[in-house]
Amino acid sequence: MADDPLNMSAADAVLFSREDPMSFARGGRLDEIHVRYETYGTLNDSKTNAVFICHALTGDAHAAGIREGETKPGWWDSMIGPGKPIDTDAVFVICPNLLGGCQGTTGPSSIDPATGQSYGLDFPILDMADFVTVHRKLIAYLGIPTLLAVVGGSLGGMQVLHWALTAPQDMGNAVIIAASSRLTAQNIAFSAVAREAIMRDAGFSHGHYLEEGTSPDAGMSIARMMAHITYMSEDALGSKFGREPQNVDLTPGFGVDFAIESYLRHQAEVFLDRFDALSYLYLSRVMDYFDPFADEDACAKLAARPIPVLVCSFTSDWRFSSAQSKRIVARLVRSGIPATYREIRSDAGHDSFLLPIPEYGDVVAAFLARGLQEVSS
Amino acid sequence: MADDPLNMSAADAVLFSREDPMSFARGGRLDEIHVRYETYGTLNDSKTNAVFICHALTGDAHAAGIREGETKPGWWDSMIGPGKPIDTDAVFVICPNLLGGCQGTTGPSSIDPATGQSYGLDFPILDMADFVTVHRKLIAYLGIPTLLAVVGGSLGGMQVLHWALTAPQDMGNAVIIAASSRLTAQNIAFSAVAREAIMRDAGFSHGHYLEEGTSPDAGMSIARMMAHITYMSEDALGSKFGREPQNVDLTPGFGVDFAIESYLRHQAEVFLDRFDALSYLYLSRVMDYFDPFADEDACAKLAARPIPVLVCSFTSDWRFSSAQSKRIVARLVRSGIPATYREIRSDAGHDSFLLPIPEYGDVVAAFLARGLQEVSS
Repeated sequence: MADDPLNMSAADAVLFSREDPMSFARGGRLDEIHVRYETYGTLNDSKTNAVFICHALTGDAHAAGIREGETKPGWWDSMIGPGKPIDTDAVFVICPNLLGGCQGTTGPSSIDPATGQSYGLDFPILDMADFVTVHRKLIAYLGIPTLLAVVGGSLGGMQVLHWALTAPQDMGNAVIIAASSRLTAQNIAFSAVAREAIMRDAGFSHGHYLEEGTSPDAGMSIARMMAHITYMSEDALGSKFGREPQNVDLTPGFGVDFAIESYLRHQAEVFLDRFDALSYLYLSRVMDYFDPFADEDACAKLAARPIPVLVCSFTSDWRFSSAQSKRIVARLVRSGIPATYREIRSDAGHDSFLLPIPEYGDVVAAFLARGLQEVSS
Repeated sequence: MADDPLNMSAADAVLFSREDPMSFARGGRLDEIHVRYETYGTLNDSKTNAVFICHALTGDAHAAGIREGETKPGWWDSMIGPGKPIDTDAVFVICPNLLGGCQGTTGPSSIDPATGQSYGLDFPILDMADFVTVHRKLIAYLGIPTLLAVVGGSLGGMQVLHWALTAPQDMGNAVIIAASSRLTAQNIAFSAVAREAIMRDAGFSHGHYLEEGTSPDAGMSIARMMAHITYMSEDALGSKFGREPQNVDLTPGFGVDFAIESYLRHQAEVFLDRFDALSYLYLSRVMDYFDPFADEDACAKLAARPIPVLVCSFTSDWRFSSAQSKRIVARLVRSGIPATYREIRSDAGHDSFLLPIPEYGDVVAAFLARGLQEVSS
């Protein structure tokens, strides 16, 4: 405990079975889903202080702390830890790698026991409901009846929304950050170009690159570079890079010359080391189809069993703009659900949800503290 | 004349020679530059009514009218013609294919007479000054001492700016539309991703795809799809496509499912038929380096011989925003140059400069009519 104030723990769970298989919302079944997850903090005796984290498109189970042999902390280390907004001195935090991911949880690059090869494009098409099905199975496995809160940003926030709408009894509070209930045509357009880049890379080998020994590196690099442009506000790109040369002077040619080009190329390179093309395709596609409010009765369950919902967005986020968050809030409020909306001022674009912005941290901290007090009193 | 009110004519000019070669601003020389150009209208006896058109990144000499065997008119048919803002009943219009282009003018895919192969990446790196050098050679070849006006949008507008700053004596008026004097980091970022997509396509064959019989189609498709997203405003994408399925219902998978995806794919396909990868690389790279106002004395020549300059931008253009046009105007005005600025309301994004928007047409028409009247009186 003194050694690790975070009390970080990594584990793997095998969920479902032949008798109780995972049924995918759009068809398909698997007998086993392996889930890698990390936990931080300590679960209290009444099991009422668990906070569940839903990670975003390229996230993983390692949300906080520093692992053996590494120097960089987890992706949400600014948010999770002792004394941080998600305060591990008070709450128990669970963060699984998403279904379809490539960091320990079953996904399209996992080996299909039936064939001995990776599932590839034969892996079932995923739906937001499938993520939540696996999340719910995990908390049952962990023996937690009701979560204090479910928290997520971007694709993580979309999972929180789906979960709150379909199984509100699982949680006391929901936090939906930098998310959307319905991607815009522009969002879908960028997603389509990324997918085109990956699938048309000869190294993609129709999804069987693992067996073929190839790799769609160029396509993944392009997808990642383009995504990074959408994650940063134009102003932030300007202040951070402007038109600065990478080296002393500009030397016109077709290589890397401007600092922004070097940054993008670096982001692409580190991404190739840690993320898988099939996961990228499968997880991003889920976002394109997510449209919970298309159903008139979408809010009925949550309205019948309302919970406090905090929705946050950032002023410079043009990937999932404040308008998209306001749409979520408006729909919830119209259905009588106590949704609170906070727009946080930030120049950092969509990436803001990962950053230690004081106002943002305070809002989340206060919301969770109130929720914790309610279950503790 | 009765047959063709536009009086459209297409021709090829061979400019420069061994004795008078083309010297490129960033190094290199070529003994001959072939230029394809079209003209419309009739040059008056005093040769004072010529309007020179500078096309944009993927434009060509065919700015207006319908060619034999085709159904689609030239790229600026909404702007150029009898009774249109650039009124061919009153002015003579010249539109050449840009140096570095692939529609009749010498470029990187042209055959290097010295090697019998395409220049490929050995073609000299281009600079805005080189475009203007060739334009000036063309008007000398055509025997026109002073142009009534030089007009261009996007990359075309950047050429107009460079020309007006460096050889204002060539023209009576300048029209700079949806342009920039200095790309933002975001602009450069998108440009870098497009270049990455093309150059990393195995079919690019290090620029010698013509000889190798390959083609960087995937890379070009990705570049074009991404460019199209930046040319359209988010609102326009939403109203035009929203989340409509391409077919009756959405059928989740990894192919084309949403209407916006079908549109982007179509745009990419038609682009492959008409545009060349090396030209795309060379011409887009010019934009990244263009920064005329970096020089304190940039406006000295134009201030010494001022001409009316009309600068137009469009409200929803996020590729070359109004802020970028305002920067041009501010610098010109500060130097005592009579620059007029008009921001046109439009939902069509960067593409607006190609569209028949009434306020836009009126502004350009009035500006040119005033200019024509001055040389006619």
